[in-house]
Amino acid sequence: MSTDPTPDFGSVDALEVPPVSLEAEASALDADDPLKHHRAAFVGAETPLVYFDGNSLGRPPRATVDRLSRFVTDEWGGRLIRGWDESWMQLPFTIGDRIGALALGAASGQTLIGDSTTVLLYKLLRAALDAQMTADPRRVEIVVGRDDFPTDRYLVEGIAAERGARVVWVDVDTSRGVDAELLGAAVTDRTAVVLLSHVSYRSGYLADGAALTRIAHDAGALVLWDLCHSAGSVPVELDAWGADLAVGCTYKYLNGGPGSPAFAYVAERHQRTLTQPVQGWMGAADVFSMGPVYRPADGMRRFLSGTPPVLAMIAMQDTLDLIEEAGIGAVRAKSVALTEFTVRVADGILSPLGVRLASPRDSAERGGHVTLSHPAMRAVTAHLWEGDVIPDYRDPHGLRIGLSPLSTSFAETLTGLRAVADAVRAER
Amino acid sequence: MSTDPTPDFGSVDALEVPPVSLEAEASALDADDPLKHHRAAFVGAETPLVYFDGNSLGRPPRATVDRLSRFVTDEWGGRLIRGWDESWMQLPFTIGDRIGALALGAASGQTLIGDSTTVLLYKLLRAALDAQMTADPRRVEIVVGRDDFPTDRYLVEGIAAERGARVVWVDVDTSRGVDAELLGAAVTDRTAVVLLSHVSYRSGYLADGAALTRIAHDAGALVLWDLCHSAGSVPVELDAWGADLAVGCTYKYLNGGPGSPAFAYVAERHQRTLTQPVQGWMGAADVFSMGPVYRPADGMRRFLSGTPPVLAMIAMQDTLDLIEEAGIGAVRAKSVALTEFTVRVADGILSPLGVRLASPRDSAERGGHVTLSHPAMRAVTAHLWEGDVIPDYRDPHGLRIGLSPLSTSFAETLTGLRAVADAVRAER
Repeated sequence: MSTDPTPDFGSVDALEVPPVSLEAEASALDADDPLKHHRAAFVGAETPLVYFDGNSLGRPPRATVDRLSRFVTDEWGGRLIRGWDESWMQLPFTIGDRIGALALGAASGQTLIGDSTTVLLYKLLRAALDAQMTADPRRVEIVVGRDDFPTDRYLVEGIAAERGARVVWVDVDTSRGVDAELLGAAVTDRTAVVLLSHVSYRSGYLADGAALTRIAHDAGALVLWDLCHSAGSVPVELDAWGADLAVGCTYKYLNGGPGSPAFAYVAERHQRTLTQPVQGWMGAADVFSMGPVYRPADGMRRFLSGTPPVLAMIAMQDTLDLIEEAGIGAVRAKSVALTEFTVRVADGILSPLGVRLASPRDSAERGGHVTLSHPAMRAVTAHLWEGDVIPDYRDPHGLRIGLSPLSTSFAETLTGLRAVADAVRAER
Repeated sequence: MSTDPTPDFGSVDALEVPPVSLEAEASALDADDPLKHHRAAFVGAETPLVYFDGNSLGRPPRATVDRLSRFVTDEWGGRLIRGWDESWMQLPFTIGDRIGALALGAASGQTLIGDSTTVLLYKLLRAALDAQMTADPRRVEIVVGRDDFPTDRYLVEGIAAERGARVVWVDVDTSRGVDAELLGAAVTDRTAVVLLSHVSYRSGYLADGAALTRIAHDAGALVLWDLCHSAGSVPVELDAWGADLAVGCTYKYLNGGPGSPAFAYVAERHQRTLTQPVQGWMGAADVFSMGPVYRPADGMRRFLSGTPPVLAMIAMQDTLDLIEEAGIGAVRAKSVALTEFTVRVADGILSPLGVRLASPRDSAERGGHVTLSHPAMRAVTAHLWEGDVIPDYRDPHGLRIGLSPLSTSFAETLTGLRAVADAVRAER
């Protein structure tokens, strides 16, 4: 049947999952969903559009429209330059601490909002590598997954070249990520830093943060966690893991808006010893003395460089309010329910069409998105976009079904997956 | 009189500038101001507050409130991830080109909106230094003013240390900046890069862009212009100067909002040879192929690193509309009129109180702000803020009178300067 399905799709999977039961199941899941009222908090949730890309750019909360208007008129326009003294100088740290407390398992004073994800990764990776190479000149290796997000790989490649370090690439199955066994085989007494994705951007593989941190530490390496695809959907426990450093996006599950600035975490024990190379006025010990020589601030502020992007960090606070109300545990529970439902539906109606699950089947090893693989997926994605079903495509052959827990319903998910089935049939 | 002025200030300067004539002059200047209707375009212009800090954080245009609301609901909320394909990927270049055309004298394809000023300065300074040191290992010197903005100095200090380069500090009178004579004495055949401020943040000194660029080039050096305090108030002619590189703020005279991202200019002739060290996905030749090795994009995109800060670059477009309507020549004419009026008023009512002009007296050598010096200025600034007169303070003893041409009136300027006189009297 999978090589020659009938156009009447109902008959294809009737034996295992009668279609009628999927709609009923979606309805029941939505009715029982403790977070169902959050969906209405987002712009566009009332439209028929199916959004499977909240893992790339989250929807705006409705409250953000007012929040930005009030900011422009009352704070920027009303307080003008005084806003810096009154609150904006602290905003990178107050919002950072909120993200730390609500989503990262980070005690206060260790998280800030800074530059782009790429720039923050550069600064922290340089900080870690330079410190390790200074302490022990034999530690010249940076370990990173060969399947990690391009920015991570490109940065490591560039930093290794400029600092005389060496990249150790960890090869992974594209439907998984770097796990304990692979990492254990990659680290040695020459490893300076390990850059790890908590959730793989491609497969959605969820790494064991505590175990991988321990393996890196046992080898004497520092760990920099890329939390882009977990922050706000999968609970992170940086302090409990004993993590050293972390960076993550705020425009995905934290709905900060297109290109909103990233967060960075530096464990308290490293804040007096690590220094980063982009020495700007906001990282200096006394910002407004504007003295002749750069002396890095004590604590997290030394990881800032330029003027903090205040206007760009306003929006994410609305989603932090929602996560605070719901609790990250409930967010994760909804996320697991959405991905499990997606896997069940895919097994029922997409597997017979030759679509393969390219994410871990066990939800304990899976983050907030599910990747479905089929040779026609690039064309399928274009087809879906025309019908207002919006996933994204990642080589090779991967359709990513991103399921933002606060804004996605089970009915929306099913509607989208049925459209995927139609599109795969149309493209074959 | 200046050592023991009478409290009745009118009598102090009655001989030279009767106070009544200043009010009349301000009225006449406002009445004749061809840009007077632009002031009403800004939030808060109707309040009695005197704003002398538009050179630090510009007021928001009223249109920005609606622009941001529409962006959140229609573009971010309505187009969602599709916005990237439809326009956002190009936005760093379309807005960059507009700034280039309206304010920088830069032909299209050479300006982008990127990271913070500090991060862009780091990337371009590294790009220039690394290229120069590779081409000629004897070129290891970076020339920078000892009185330049802290970020410029701290960056140079850090980059020199990490690259094995050497800093050549140019000592300047704090009421001026790096001029042709000082630069000529600083550059040699060992100079790799010269980092120059077009308008000094402290004194408002306006450098001769063409002359200084020629002097640096004659020595075989590359020039990186810091345009933070000129962009949007003083016309810049990067192409005509033959400039190599430039970076500038957008939250000052371009009113992009607190912490809005900076712009960078790279002359077309350098775009295939210079590379910068923060290798992220957005700088790669083919962003979405996400290939195994970083290959920098041809053209300006190689100077991007992470996901562009789209939400944060929306606001500045309203001021670009206003500059387009007025023309940068008219903006500069108003700016000169405002600073000349400020100098006249200071001569009349502040000089007798011991206040010294710490900016060039010749408007051809002065940008958009005027710095007034007095030993009590730190306390004077605090005093003024309490009365809703908002300049800023810079060591040593400097009160900066920032005069944003589109949003400042002559009457507002006079009201503020009279308050300065009162505050100086009160603090003596």
